[in-house]
Amino acid sequence: MQNKKSKKDELDRIFSPRSVAVVGASENIKRSGYRFLKSFITIGFKGSLYAINPSTDKVFHCPAYPRITDVPGNVDHVVVCVPSIHIPSIIQDCVDKSVNSVVVFSSEFSETGTEEGRLLEEELVKIARKSHLRIIGPNCMGIYCPSSGLSFRLDMPKRSGTVAMISQSGGMAISSLLSATERNIFFSKVISYGNEADLGAPELLEYLSVDDNTSIIMVYIEGTKNGRELFSALKKACSRKPVIVLKGGISNAGARAVESHTGALSGIANIWASAVNQSGGSQVYNLEEFIDTALAFNSLKRPKGRRLGIITVSGGIGVNLSDLAIAMNFEVPLFSKEIEGQFAEIITAPGTGVQNPLDMAATYFIQNKFRSVFNIIDQDKSLDLIMMHISMEYVSRFTEINPKLEDDLINAVTGCYQRIEHPFFVVIPYTIDDDIRKNFIDKLLEHNIPIFPTIERALNAIDHCIRYYQRIDSMQCL
Amino acid sequence: MQNKKSKKDELDRIFSPRSVAVVGASENIKRSGYRFLKSFITIGFKGSLYAINPSTDKVFHCPAYPRITDVPGNVDHVVVCVPSIHIPSIIQDCVDKSVNSVVVFSSEFSETGTEEGRLLEEELVKIARKSHLRIIGPNCMGIYCPSSGLSFRLDMPKRSGTVAMISQSGGMAISSLLSATERNIFFSKVISYGNEADLGAPELLEYLSVDDNTSIIMVYIEGTKNGRELFSALKKACSRKPVIVLKGGISNAGARAVESHTGALSGIANIWASAVNQSGGSQVYNLEEFIDTALAFNSLKRPKGRRLGIITVSGGIGVNLSDLAIAMNFEVPLFSKEIEGQFAEIITAPGTGVQNPLDMAATYFIQNKFRSVFNIIDQDKSLDLIMMHISMEYVSRFTEINPKLEDDLINAVTGCYQRIEHPFFVVIPYTIDDDIRKNFIDKLLEHNIPIFPTIERALNAIDHCIRYYQRIDSMQCL
Repeated sequence: MQNKKSKKDELDRIFSPRSVAVVGASENIKRSGYRFLKSFITIGFKGSLYAINPSTDKVFHCPAYPRITDVPGNVDHVVVCVPSIHIPSIIQDCVDKSVNSVVVFSSEFSETGTEEGRLLEEELVKIARKSHLRIIGPNCMGIYCPSSGLSFRLDMPKRSGTVAMISQSGGMAISSLLSATERNIFFSKVISYGNEADLGAPELLEYLSVDDNTSIIMVYIEGTKNGRELFSALKKACSRKPVIVLKGGISNAGARAVESHTGALSGIANIWASAVNQSGGSQVYNLEEFIDTALAFNSLKRPKGRRLGIITVSGGIGVNLSDLAIAMNFEVPLFSKEIEGQFAEIITAPGTGVQNPLDMAATYFIQNKFRSVFNIIDQDKSLDLIMMHISMEYVSRFTEINPKLEDDLINAVTGCYQRIEHPFFVVIPYTIDDDIRKNFIDKLLEHNIPIFPTIERALNAIDHCIRYYQRIDSMQCL
Repeated sequence: MQNKKSKKDELDRIFSPRSVAVVGASENIKRSGYRFLKSFITIGFKGSLYAINPSTDKVFHCPAYPRITDVPGNVDHVVVCVPSIHIPSIIQDCVDKSVNSVVVFSSEFSETGTEEGRLLEEELVKIARKSHLRIIGPNCMGIYCPSSGLSFRLDMPKRSGTVAMISQSGGMAISSLLSATERNIFFSKVISYGNEADLGAPELLEYLSVDDNTSIIMVYIEGTKNGRELFSALKKACSRKPVIVLKGGISNAGARAVESHTGALSGIANIWASAVNQSGGSQVYNLEEFIDTALAFNSLKRPKGRRLGIITVSGGIGVNLSDLAIAMNFEVPLFSKEIEGQFAEIITAPGTGVQNPLDMAATYFIQNKFRSVFNIIDQDKSLDLIMMHISMEYVSRFTEINPKLEDDLINAVTGCYQRIEHPFFVVIPYTIDDDIRKNFIDKLLEHNIPIFPTIERALNAIDHCIRYYQRIDSMQCL
């Protein structure tokens, strides 16, 4: 058994190779080998890049060789995207070349459910065990690590963040990563690990829990070969940082689909749910909740309780928002008399309401009043959280009256956000999906303001945060 | 008591005035009178338009008069947007001029909770009762009816549809109407009725239930003065067409907000829920569900059951979609052996799965195979509904390979949609919110394909349809 330090070093090396070779690299855009090599080039991998392709001596600007063993320099990391039948000999080449890690993108292994597929996969591991070579996959997308220039799609951001993700499904990794980017969440490392023949969820979780560049861990998992090891790693990780778990294959139909997808045993829903819960993880159920929860952990100040102050432009919407907050077990308390009195002094127009939810009506669009509202509400000690609801259909209506209004409102919100002490978030529904909305959101995101499309999605994500910190606090009391 | 015929005629007249006057009309963009007059002009009201404004003789191209009684011709309909204190004398002018209906936009009536406001509101009604004048409001946006050119915002569509909406809140009417437009739902009539001093929810519901231009009714309601009358009207309406009810003020905080918003008593959540349920209405809880449900009733073929076939591009996403469908009490049955065999012949690439959920991987982007998949799945008698999940992050990836792919896929989907016999819908998540996504959605909407952003929102809306039709069927069996 290696000690912890060397284990961490071993995995650190996987995420910071000095040289990468892509087996099956090609300039033919239809080939997967095109995508991987081009992804490394696009994201700006700084080390040596090699193409392994017997029929040419260059792919893009990268020197090409027939085999890995033909490369003159060191090769730390390899990505393989050729048919499965050729892969054992490529793994042997990796061993011979003292390669550190290999991503096997190719499928047609154990996930097919055939004896042939299973044996082929075992063979890869058997060969790798002859050296220190670690296999990621097969049937996976591999590694995205922007700080060291590893990527598996051309449209992945160069910007690093502190969220990490491990995903048994490549598709889910891609969808989650790109959805997260839209919400201003950036990543330290993403690992799509597929069939988990060698390197799998438990080791990756242990590694990420001690990775200084990672503060939040997202996990998409369909099943495991070793539940005990997985949950022990999960528990350890949860004691150090928030871990958000999306489990695929909870239902019979989902489990059936898992079999042909990554070949994993998906276990039984209730066992999983209670194991995740006992580990201290935040269990989520769909892609939106996965991202929302990461956003809440990543961008929202830590909320101390469930008492919500609501700022809105429309009475009817305020009524509905209150109902929804209460239904989600949050409180919408009365403002203190003093706060209410201060609001009454500045919000005086017909059709307004100075209680919580605050119905500002047109006052919403008067910059200095807007700033005052923020200053006042932020003084209210009876609130734990402040939410602003922005109905773009009002912004566009008032933009007719004052074309500068959109920018004014953006400046007011971002300015207030910098000063506000309460945990604060914005809800912007998809009422009108136009350029004004898109610009508005982009500008708020530049200031790291957490934005959710509905109050339910926001409060559900925040509920995960509140419960996580409660668990952590109660653990520290023990 | 009038008979039904004359009652219908009376309300028909409100929705098809030959002439409209706006009291407080102005060319000053900051005034509400600007907005109303400009809205009538923009949507193309065909009759005579008058401005009531003592300080000018023309507002835009419309002749202006100091008072309604000064207008030389008939005035059928009036919109009032001047401070509340002036309104009794304007209502008297309406009576003197034999006006048929008046929308009182202005607030500061009973919703303020003051005795003064309540008395002022009563006074309006007392004056109106001297003739056949009907009041809509006060504290409301009034009427949108594109076929007759009535509107209350500049950005409301000219296109008519067969959905009607009544809303106690003007803001909710606007947000719902514009959200619906984005989803390709168009309206016969929308009435924001505010404080309900005279014309209110029961009468409007009765009218819409026999309105031949209306096939679905949406109701946003905060409270009522006469529960018995309301629920009797609701029951009658539900027996004739789907009625979707969003109730504001279910919680204590929501109810508190209702008081200052429209002054209505909002009742107790459970009483409402069971009354709506007993009436046969579909109770929804937020704006998104309100629109989703209208979309399902409006655009989806009537589903016979809950057995769902899923077409997807990614295994992991298919696994999660199945889990979510099962959790929502739908079924994801195995395809019949024959259907599975047919799929296996055309979906042969590595990484695919030919069971339900169908994981097409790259086959998704091969046009003739895509068409075959639709033909095959549509033959499966064990399915009640077919759903296609479109991950835009894959469309953009494959568009790199084949720039024509986006159009090809749009053509394939719309072509297949025209032939498919099963109820069919599309789920396009907000993973990447870019122009490709927007164009894609716009094109599918042109063909009236129902699109939802998540499977849960789709199935929740469809669940409302299934339960509504079950109730109707069981009523017909009695």
